[in-house]
Amino acid sequence: MTGQEPHPPTLAAAFEPPYYAVIFTTLRAPSSDQGYAQTAAEMVELALGQDGFLGIDSAYSEGLGVTVSYWRDEAAIAAWKAHGDHQAARQAGRAKWYRAYQLRVAKVERAYGWPGAEDK
Amino acid sequence: MTGQEPHPPTLAAAFEPPYYAVIFTTLRAPSSDQGYAQTAAEMVELALGQDGFLGIDSAYSEGLGVTVSYWRDEAAIAAWKAHGDHQAARQAGRAKWYRAYQLRVAKVERAYGWPGAEDK
Repeated sequence: MTGQEPHPPTLAAAFEPPYYAVIFTTLRAPSSDQGYAQTAAEMVELALGQDGFLGIDSAYSEGLGVTVSYWRDEAAIAAWKAHGDHQAARQAGRAKWYRAYQLRVAKVERAYGWPGAEDK
Repeated sequence: MTGQEPHPPTLAAAFEPPYYAVIFTTLRAPSSDQGYAQTAAEMVELALGQDGFLGIDSAYSEGLGVTVSYWRDEAAIAAWKAHGDHQAARQAGRAKWYRAYQLRVAKVERAYGWPGAEDK
């Protein structure tokens, strides 16, 4: 990884449900970085400026990436999907970085954290 | 990590929504493994035998873990939560392995994958 890391080691904040989670799981192609880290960081920066963006959690190990971004509602997800730079990054992902991915859009119905709440 | 890895580098299979995702994000305590890898592998083995378990995606990097497990319905999640060995593992997690975590239960409303479907 180079210079700017896309995600500092903090958890996305807790929000009051309902809201939406976009679960993006990837198998990385067995290649060198080819601009991945920079683009990933740029996408997080861009997302931060999107109306309705709530936060993101992302990790990568052993060829598998799991990124979950959180959004206020479906409209916010649709606007982010339509963003031109994001569309270009997705295209680059299919061309260079990923062997396969799955994307799931899910409505968060309940949530809890620790510390802050015991195991319910 | 030792011997048996909890997750091979494959993506959880695609299922027809609706179904449920449990999004478990963690900050790992700055300690040695202390049995984490073995317990994580055991929990995946146990979950595989649970009625209604659909799959799991998990990654860990830079102190942050993101694990998403998929379940047929809320009843399957409740049964897994009540499993005695799983309860013990959660208690060990709070005592030894985690500084903090968030758990979100979300209903997957739509999903697509690539290859297999173009970006919608």
